[in-house]
Amino acid sequence: MTTSPNNDWVALCEAKRNAQAASIPPSWVITPPAPDTQLNVLDIPQTCGLLTPRELEITEFGARDVSELVEKLAKGEWSSVEVTTAYYKRAIVAHQVTNCLTEIFVDRALARAKELDEYLAQNGKPIGPLHGLPMSLKDQFTMKGLETIMGYASNIGKFAEEDCVLVEMLYDLGAVPFVRTNVPQTLMWGETHNNVFGRTTNPYNRGLTPGGSSGGEGALLAMKGSPLGIGTDIDGSLRIPSAFCGLYTLRPSYERLPYYGASNALTGQESISSVLGPMSTSLSSLKLLTRSLIDARPWEKDPLVVRKRWCEDEYKLVEHGGGKGMVFGVIWDNEVVRPHPPLVRAMKYVKQALERAGHKVIDWKPLNHIDIYKNAQTILVADGGEDYKRDCALSGEPLITSMSPEAGAHPIPGEAAHSMELEVSLVKTLLWQLHNEKRALRKAYLDHWNSTKSITGTGRPVDAIISPAVAYTAVPHGLNYDSFYTTLGNSMDYACSGFPVTFVDPKLDVPLPPHEFHNHEDEAFYKLYHPDLFPGVPVGLQLIGRTLEEEAVIRMTEIVDSALRKWKGENGLQ
Amino acid sequence: MTTSPNNDWVALCEAKRNAQAASIPPSWVITPPAPDTQLNVLDIPQTCGLLTPRELEITEFGARDVSELVEKLAKGEWSSVEVTTAYYKRAIVAHQVTNCLTEIFVDRALARAKELDEYLAQNGKPIGPLHGLPMSLKDQFTMKGLETIMGYASNIGKFAEEDCVLVEMLYDLGAVPFVRTNVPQTLMWGETHNNVFGRTTNPYNRGLTPGGSSGGEGALLAMKGSPLGIGTDIDGSLRIPSAFCGLYTLRPSYERLPYYGASNALTGQESISSVLGPMSTSLSSLKLLTRSLIDARPWEKDPLVVRKRWCEDEYKLVEHGGGKGMVFGVIWDNEVVRPHPPLVRAMKYVKQALERAGHKVIDWKPLNHIDIYKNAQTILVADGGEDYKRDCALSGEPLITSMSPEAGAHPIPGEAAHSMELEVSLVKTLLWQLHNEKRALRKAYLDHWNSTKSITGTGRPVDAIISPAVAYTAVPHGLNYDSFYTTLGNSMDYACSGFPVTFVDPKLDVPLPPHEFHNHEDEAFYKLYHPDLFPGVPVGLQLIGRTLEEEAVIRMTEIVDSALRKWKGENGLQ
Repeated sequence: MTTSPNNDWVALCEAKRNAQAASIPPSWVITPPAPDTQLNVLDIPQTCGLLTPRELEITEFGARDVSELVEKLAKGEWSSVEVTTAYYKRAIVAHQVTNCLTEIFVDRALARAKELDEYLAQNGKPIGPLHGLPMSLKDQFTMKGLETIMGYASNIGKFAEEDCVLVEMLYDLGAVPFVRTNVPQTLMWGETHNNVFGRTTNPYNRGLTPGGSSGGEGALLAMKGSPLGIGTDIDGSLRIPSAFCGLYTLRPSYERLPYYGASNALTGQESISSVLGPMSTSLSSLKLLTRSLIDARPWEKDPLVVRKRWCEDEYKLVEHGGGKGMVFGVIWDNEVVRPHPPLVRAMKYVKQALERAGHKVIDWKPLNHIDIYKNAQTILVADGGEDYKRDCALSGEPLITSMSPEAGAHPIPGEAAHSMELEVSLVKTLLWQLHNEKRALRKAYLDHWNSTKSITGTGRPVDAIISPAVAYTAVPHGLNYDSFYTTLGNSMDYACSGFPVTFVDPKLDVPLPPHEFHNHEDEAFYKLYHPDLFPGVPVGLQLIGRTLEEEAVIRMTEIVDSALRKWKGENGLQ
Repeated sequence: MTTSPNNDWVALCEAKRNAQAASIPPSWVITPPAPDTQLNVLDIPQTCGLLTPRELEITEFGARDVSELVEKLAKGEWSSVEVTTAYYKRAIVAHQVTNCLTEIFVDRALARAKELDEYLAQNGKPIGPLHGLPMSLKDQFTMKGLETIMGYASNIGKFAEEDCVLVEMLYDLGAVPFVRTNVPQTLMWGETHNNVFGRTTNPYNRGLTPGGSSGGEGALLAMKGSPLGIGTDIDGSLRIPSAFCGLYTLRPSYERLPYYGASNALTGQESISSVLGPMSTSLSSLKLLTRSLIDARPWEKDPLVVRKRWCEDEYKLVEHGGGKGMVFGVIWDNEVVRPHPPLVRAMKYVKQALERAGHKVIDWKPLNHIDIYKNAQTILVADGGEDYKRDCALSGEPLITSMSPEAGAHPIPGEAAHSMELEVSLVKTLLWQLHNEKRALRKAYLDHWNSTKSITGTGRPVDAIISPAVAYTAVPHGLNYDSFYTTLGNSMDYACSGFPVTFVDPKLDVPLPPHEFHNHEDEAFYKLYHPDLFPGVPVGLQLIGRTLEEEAVIRMTEIVDSALRKWKGENGLQ
């Protein structure tokens, strides 16, 4: 019997999974509950017995405020070895219940942590602003000596000869990259599943997806298995898993942070650039990571990075009334798909909280969202799918065409009779005409935004937009088809953050009566909602600011978060 | 007899030329010398008798220092009407000897100037930093109510409904756009000739080209027919005419200045973005124009403009040792084509002048210049020439395939037997692989540049590069095929300036012995040089800085210019 190419990739993937399992220290192996016996696994780190009380304390502390964790590390109050060990153990636990990791390299990370501890002891000062901090990285961020599977069997056995620029800079800043996290094959899904490592599940409910493509990060961070992760976003891949997993994130504008040397899908596609950003349960991660990288002058290492220093004036919202009496616009419905009830409730919470804090909230009028969506989707497949096919052909693995656990399942149940109205076809296209269209759409949106100056009463246009990141909360595997609310940021290149607001409550989030559907997707998504399907899962939103206004977006997110916490406290809400 | 489409475009062009002639006030018509009786026409404004002594004084003054001209306008010392009238008359004289203009709109410009004078009288302060200043614009910058021919017959009769963002902003800043200037058909030639307006000649020698594609600006500005012009550059189109016409210019990085709404060739091509910049006989124009536009927050009008404020620290060269003891690298030969003797002499002048001023000058090692050139040229024709063909087909006019006055002439005389080694073929190409290649080339050049830190002795890499903009000075019509020294800036996106150094002197610029030729183009260019062909024409160079480092590039150009003037004065040189 000869080995067919088909068997080769299967065997390769199996060998890789075995190697991954072998990279887990045997004493860290737990007995996870069977998937069907326990859907919510957030308590496993506490109950499994692997982590000491001190390790639980460290990881809970870091999950609340990573800046304070970094302070403790910088002072030597906690050593990098003990913090990294604590997080590593928690990450391995998270992995055993959600399948969130790809590369596991305990010895290497702990050796690095030890070096940093020694440096601090010898020099009496930290090596950089991320001194000693364990960090998780999406499975694109190449590290010397490790494979970068990135969802393709063909990458098995290819060991990187260099760190990508991000990793190089994180090392310079003192960080301890300690795990890499799972992604979907092609990177172009809002879920996380591939032929090498399989599927990542949502720790709030393992029957649901953590989102994608930075879904490994989503699951890991929700488990508090990392204080700070780095994901990427070309069409929502930071904001979707952050919303589904209750995290904070920042999608910076094109080329603000250094991407050079990282693996990627659709390489060379620069019309809608993929960007990298932080993901974390801790809000302070946004400023910490962004500012640390920018202060280190990434344009000296990545030729595409914009030479723009961190601007403290912009962070202080000098251009937004100093952060007092700001005006926010809310996208209640972008006229593509209407958000599910929990999202509407989350927006109402934010509206009330902001008003309570002295800000004004007005309804945002959507403009051309369908055209923006279609233009972007056409750009992303302008190679006619060649990129995916090439990477699959290298190993013979099949292209994954549905994220559903049931092979061949229809994307949206009960909708087989409907064609997808908003789908774009896979046709090779010269990009120039699409760029013309995109440029005009950007100008129209810019002018539209500026025109709100006449209605805010502040003399300024709306300061930021509050919007769903996804029209729904985490859905069962195979059902997430939505980048309808995220594409705006990618295509218009708006700096956006994601932030958690609340959790689905079947009592509060009752189904809405049917509306006049915008299209078949809207109808299908409407039918998808049942309050009992998603109880207790996180509900997140995004805040949308202007292009290259990362500093202001971070600060406004802090203001929204603080207003929300205060208002929820006053109203006894979660 | 029916009118063929072919006749239509001929008739259309003739009608447009007649309309242009009719737009010149009859009293401003001069009797220019026949082209073959007088090649150098720089003295015609003085000798033709049209300009009053005061008008000559104003235009000579503005040609030396546009910032001081703006000061006089701001104080009302000179009115905008008299300054605009003086420049308009001189521009019309320039046009009659070099054919440099396209749109002429005297009444409109003078009405605008009058409004500004009234504003100043009423308010006691200027409307903005360019108050009252007449400005010439390349024939891409759309103005409401005017045609934008941009070298194509098909644009005749199409009147713009809006100003482009640049023009909108220039009006806000107080400028008086007063003429538009000629370009080549397709915009993609380093000369200036089209079927509508014909050929623009170099006022230093009308047998030579002023370069292109901003060649109308080149000829007009050399005649001191405008104090400040705006051109564009996708492959050298600001720096080539500036070098050929003895001007200063700045090629900013992609998206630093607002291009939205201007007409363009290859629209939607965003891999190597065309940029706009100032051209002038006055060095102070660079800071004046760049800073005025950036301070007016162009990102609020053009969604593609980088949100980066004018940085006075960067202008003060805080990152370049405060401008003291800097290190410059000289590209004596980029290993694609070797520069002609006048260029080598110019580089020697700059080297000596900089050393005299306390700076260090080292030899710059070229890296991958041929690969960078080929990658860029392939990107620029990635549509297989569709853009050109489409614009020609609209009117039926033929595509111009040689800039030589002799139809069908071979690009480089005596070289018919040689194939062009560096030519790229017209094949439709998906851009993504070219982007990958370009990105790697940018990273390699960045690292190469940074590696000079080890040899400068300042602890910094080389502060800027001094290089020819073109391997030769202005050449006879039809012979300019060179973007070999300019592409580097466009493809790597380096902020570059152009500055004049000296004039060709047949006694000093003796031919060099033949070298081992890099390729057939290099050989052909070598054979092109005869010292008697180009006596007295300007010799210019470029200064190359880092991406988005416009402020520093402007200041370093000022330092080089000042060192050069001082050194030439000390040595009795021109």
